[in-house]
Amino acid sequence: MKAYRLLEWGKPAQVVEVEVPKPASGQILVKVAGNGLCHSDFGMATLPKEQGEALGWKMPFTLGHETGGWVAELGDGVHGLSVGDPVVLMGNNSCGVCDYCLRGEDHNCDNGGYGRGYGRDGGLADFVLVDSARLVIKLDQLNPVEAGPLTDAGTTAYHGVKRVLPKLYPGSTAVVIGAGGLGSFAIQLLKVLSPARIVAVDTNQARLDFALELGAHETLIGVNENTTKDILDLTSGKGANVVLDFAGFDTTIEAGIAAVCKGGSYGLVGAGFGTYNKPWFGNLPKDGEVFNYQGGSISDTKEVIKLAEAGLIRNEVEIFPFSQIEEAYDKLHKGKLRGRAVVTPGS
Amino acid sequence: MKAYRLLEWGKPAQVVEVEVPKPASGQILVKVAGNGLCHSDFGMATLPKEQGEALGWKMPFTLGHETGGWVAELGDGVHGLSVGDPVVLMGNNSCGVCDYCLRGEDHNCDNGGYGRGYGRDGGLADFVLVDSARLVIKLDQLNPVEAGPLTDAGTTAYHGVKRVLPKLYPGSTAVVIGAGGLGSFAIQLLKVLSPARIVAVDTNQARLDFALELGAHETLIGVNENTTKDILDLTSGKGANVVLDFAGFDTTIEAGIAAVCKGGSYGLVGAGFGTYNKPWFGNLPKDGEVFNYQGGSISDTKEVIKLAEAGLIRNEVEIFPFSQIEEAYDKLHKGKLRGRAVVTPGS
Amino acid sequence: MKAYRLLEWGKPAQVVEVEVPKPASGQILVKVAGNGLCHSDFGMATLPKEQGEALGWKMPFTLGHETGGWVAELGDGVHGLSVGDPVVLMGNNSCGVCDYCLRGEDHNCDNGGYGRGYGRDGGLADFVLVDSARLVIKLDQLNPVEAGPLTDAGTTAYHGVKRVLPKLYPGSTAVVIGAGGLGSFAIQLLKVLSPARIVAVDTNQARLDFALELGAHETLIGVNENTTKDILDLTSGKGANVVLDFAGFDTTIEAGIAAVCKGGSYGLVGAGFGTYNKPWFGNLPKDGEVFNYQGGSISDTKEVIKLAEAGLIRNEVEIFPFSQIEEAYDKLHKGKLRGRAVVTPGS
Amino acid sequence: MKAYRLLEWGKPAQVVEVEVPKPASGQILVKVAGNGLCHSDFGMATLPKEQGEALGWKMPFTLGHETGGWVAELGDGVHGLSVGDPVVLMGNNSCGVCDYCLRGEDHNCDNGGYGRGYGRDGGLADFVLVDSARLVIKLDQLNPVEAGPLTDAGTTAYHGVKRVLPKLYPGSTAVVIGAGGLGSFAIQLLKVLSPARIVAVDTNQARLDFALELGAHETLIGVNENTTKDILDLTSGKGANVVLDFAGFDTTIEAGIAAVCKGGSYGLVGAGFGTYNKPWFGNLPKDGEVFNYQGGSISDTKEVIKLAEAGLIRNEVEIFPFSQIEEAYDKLHKGKLRGRAVVTPGS
Repeated sequence: MKAYRLLEWGKPAQVVEVEVPKPASGQILVKVAGNGLCHSDFGMATLPKEQGEALGWKMPFTLGHETGGWVAELGDGVHGLSVGDPVVLMGNNSCGVCDYCLRGEDHNCDNGGYGRGYGRDGGLADFVLVDSARLVIKLDQLNPVEAGPLTDAGTTAYHGVKRVLPKLYPGSTAVVIGAGGLGSFAIQLLKVLSPARIVAVDTNQARLDFALELGAHETLIGVNENTTKDILDLTSGKGANVVLDFAGFDTTIEAGIAAVCKGGSYGLVGAGFGTYNKPWFGNLPKDGEVFNYQGGSISDTKEVIKLAEAGLIRNEVEIFPFSQIEEAYDKLHKGKLRGRAVVTPGS
Repeated sequence: MKAYRLLEWGKPAQVVEVEVPKPASGQILVKVAGNGLCHSDFGMATLPKEQGEALGWKMPFTLGHETGGWVAELGDGVHGLSVGDPVVLMGNNSCGVCDYCLRGEDHNCDNGGYGRGYGRDGGLADFVLVDSARLVIKLDQLNPVEAGPLTDAGTTAYHGVKRVLPKLYPGSTAVVIGAGGLGSFAIQLLKVLSPARIVAVDTNQARLDFALELGAHETLIGVNENTTKDILDLTSGKGANVVLDFAGFDTTIEAGIAAVCKGGSYGLVGAGFGTYNKPWFGNLPKDGEVFNYQGGSISDTKEVIKLAEAGLIRNEVEIFPFSQIEEAYDKLHKGKLRGRAVVTPGS
Repeated sequence: MKAYRLLEWGKPAQVVEVEVPKPASGQILVKVAGNGLCHSDFGMATLPKEQGEALGWKMPFTLGHETGGWVAELGDGVHGLSVGDPVVLMGNNSCGVCDYCLRGEDHNCDNGGYGRGYGRDGGLADFVLVDSARLVIKLDQLNPVEAGPLTDAGTTAYHGVKRVLPKLYPGSTAVVIGAGGLGSFAIQLLKVLSPARIVAVDTNQARLDFALELGAHETLIGVNENTTKDILDLTSGKGANVVLDFAGFDTTIEAGIAAVCKGGSYGLVGAGFGTYNKPWFGNLPKDGEVFNYQGGSISDTKEVIKLAEAGLIRNEVEIFPFSQIEEAYDKLHKGKLRGRAVVTPGS
Repeated sequence: MKAYRLLEWGKPAQVVEVEVPKPASGQILVKVAGNGLCHSDFGMATLPKEQGEALGWKMPFTLGHETGGWVAELGDGVHGLSVGDPVVLMGNNSCGVCDYCLRGEDHNCDNGGYGRGYGRDGGLADFVLVDSARLVIKLDQLNPVEAGPLTDAGTTAYHGVKRVLPKLYPGSTAVVIGAGGLGSFAIQLLKVLSPARIVAVDTNQARLDFALELGAHETLIGVNENTTKDILDLTSGKGANVVLDFAGFDTTIEAGIAAVCKGGSYGLVGAGFGTYNKPWFGNLPKDGEVFNYQGGSISDTKEVIKLAEAGLIRNEVEIFPFSQIEEAYDKLHKGKLRGRAVVTPGS
């Protein structure tokens, strides 16, 4: 079968011919319907060998960690799945046995740094192997061609929104900084799951227009030197109960932190690698919280799938045949996509 | 009566003779038994006029916000208190009517920046006036001469410890950076309220010895370049579930943040005004929380009082007659106190 | 002024002429715009003297505990309100000082059994006196003529829905038994605040039709011997995550308890005084919860008002002039109202 | 090897000779060090065939679900365990894949009704087979001969205590009805994990004396017609914040429910199959909770093991060689044991 693979550390991926894997006991072979492309794929292609090996990654490996497909073959002892079932696969890897997994925090699994599409063979191939039925989510109504991005972009946004829901009582305000892929999921999720007034902040007016369409109540062009003041003005000087920052630059961190009310939450999701240069004492939201995370749990993903199946959130994708995989990555790289790019290996 | 007062912005406090106040409707007059001295008193004496006025403070005013005493006179319409009742007074001011107060988060009250001993007359006098029965806590067994510091130092430590209790399941580790006044309360509280292993970190060996006496399981001299590694070693490489930092310097923030496990908490309590110079993404505790606060709620203080009355925590104080108030502040300033200094105005 | 009053224990209320009260220090006089009628008013008219006195009630007193109006006069020392402000008044009384109030659980206040309209003068008069600014909620956009029922029926429904929100993740099911006054608020609130599938159960088809209009996804005629099975069928045999029972009869308790999934919640709100005749062990929802309550907190009411002001819930009322108060109670008694009856004393 | 087995529905168990099982892929073979005897074993011997088969149970099967031992052999693909490791085995079965397991609520697993010692071969044999490394907990310091009962009696008590900890702030009261096997664990756990005042209630004075030794602050002989009043008197009329009922009879439910304060918890753990004959409205703890459960999660058991390894709780057992298994069950049946009976198959 064809696979889009990294063959050597520091070299770009390429399409190669490989064997279809066989599921061992407990494993599941999945025929890939569609696999979403992610910015992090670029980073994997340039990761230094030492870092990759420290994570336990093994060359060569096939890219792709936002995968939908159909169950093709079951290893011994797998229950609850049948050949032909439409499914999506957890993007985050996890072991199911460590203390984190046993508490339902599988996104914090100690063994999560080595998974399908990052260190071992992922979904940019005709077939992909999954280690456990835990990591396979059956679809009732969604099309597995399109559903893959819900397991990563959708799940990450959901994890942050779910965490802050207790702070979003009626009359509260939630600010979403960065209304792109993840941010636009967050806006939809806030709209469906909370009564909060939603303020979208972005440098791009078109994205703000789209944010309004998705349910934002207010928009602000920024982040700039007025952003904090604008948010305070919108909240009668109190500040926002929640700021979710999908950018994560120095400027967005500074503006976001200063805009949170007492007792409120600032969640950093965007990998902008910004720093915060003020003293923490007296500047962090008083009696509030600052948090940072990546991804979400299996339960999070299942809940995102339920929302999409109920029609409560939409998942915008652009479909590319496997033969156009390089074009798809190019559009991703150049910011020319509306929604997530999904490549369909079988096509 | 005598009162230890700030008379002018930027000038040191002095003992002066003033009228005993009369309680208006709803107010309570309290005869002061003992009032704890606090580092923040020094700052008030040097606060610029503009900042003080911005907070709504009015000159002159009597210092003292850690007050114990006896009810001396009740204004109209005060229920639940009788003349002679031994009491402590909330250090934090709060209005009882704003959204924060109504949720039980009175320590976040919008009207809390102007209170007894900071902006209006406090407890370093023979008598002090309290605005509402909400702010008066009756003592069952404690001596009001000594109990004042529980409302401030004890309450602040308690607020942080209470917040992190859900993370302190059996097998977990809590690190206390700074084993001084607040930190030594925190160690006692962690011991009584959680099954966590407690690690005390301080530069001062005598304090560490005292920490062991109060219930710490491990001590580390620091913070220095080995502190994070030492904590990781003590936790099989996982990190601490909780770090409470009662210092708050650049070094303690950096070491503390790096020592927190995935999903864990770092609480900044110490007013060291440190900053954190690394990117937040990937460095803050993954899926954990960072928080900063001052003081605690009325419920917090009531609970601290209950712990002290049950003999579960001890409150070390050094008693000074009112005539030695300057000596007491001097010892506080020079770090020569073991425990909190309490001045007894009636003496 | 006119007032609709109970004059003697066990005798019906009547319209009498009384003095307009004067606000003492801390009190607020409110000109009544509209006051909702409640089934519990009937019970007050027939309450035995001993029971009433045990509650601290004093004859005579004016009925009415769902009150909207305008601030008419302020006692000394009241902040944050101005004459003319449109307001609603908390139906539940509370003291602001007890441990429950200080935790934000004022609906559990030990002093809550004696309040405006139940034991002392309520809102069925031209003016009513309120003890504290805590109990007065300013309106931004709602009409005080109509808003009174939100403080009681709306608040009660909200308190139950808010409590169970953490169990209502995507893919979950919430059952509302009894789609009348409170139940129809609950359906709206579940729709706005959760992604749950909502199942309305009622004996009355017209109410079920209305429930669908308000956002219910499924309806069941019942409760009858099929109700539990029907709910299990709707949930693939798992049971509902939440059942809120606004009837509270033997039959609804039995059917409701049996329909809850493991870990789920059954909330009894309806005063049907039913019992449950099966052994609790093995029959109550495994590792779930059963709860019963009345009313809600001041914060709950403020949040309900915010939802109504944002247009997220609607509050159906039928307006009656004060001269038709008996007709209004008669329609209430006979179940002929659509929505809540509100009487307008000034009219 | 020898095994103590049920051979036919409705017939008593007997010692028989069987083959040592072989671990398949993913499974673990454990050499049994000690297996605790449980009252529920008696019920299994008399269970009607239809009920057993409805649970998926298969005859014959070996009894024993409180098992400690050493890893003897690993199936393919098992990580994190080594031959010789001292371990205890989860008593509750669970699948690791269903929605409950994925949330960390494996004690609610849909597949939990068929497990080692109840429906398939358990620990009353020289060796026992475990399906997954999830269900195996390594011991650092405890002796596997004695540790088995911590996985069942200890875990069940812990699950209830952990749930109510947020209600047990300083100044609160927890009542334990039934100070026997589970109740005496509960008393120890409340002492270690909370600052609550602990009240033990039992009909047996010797157990109450032991309760005081374990940390109870007060004891009451009962339950009888004075029990509720006694608890109210001990709490200044407020009621207990928490009642954990390890008996579960009509009398203990009625007394326990009436003794809970507003907002408090009543947890039914004891399988006394009692009912509650009063109307729920107005009688269940106002705005509180009633709950019922069995067992606990894997995380719960791990935490109990940590407490025992830290010396914070003790686990009293009486050891019997395998040849005296009938004598051991007889003492259990006649209530003549102090602590749990553990049978050591290898001996």
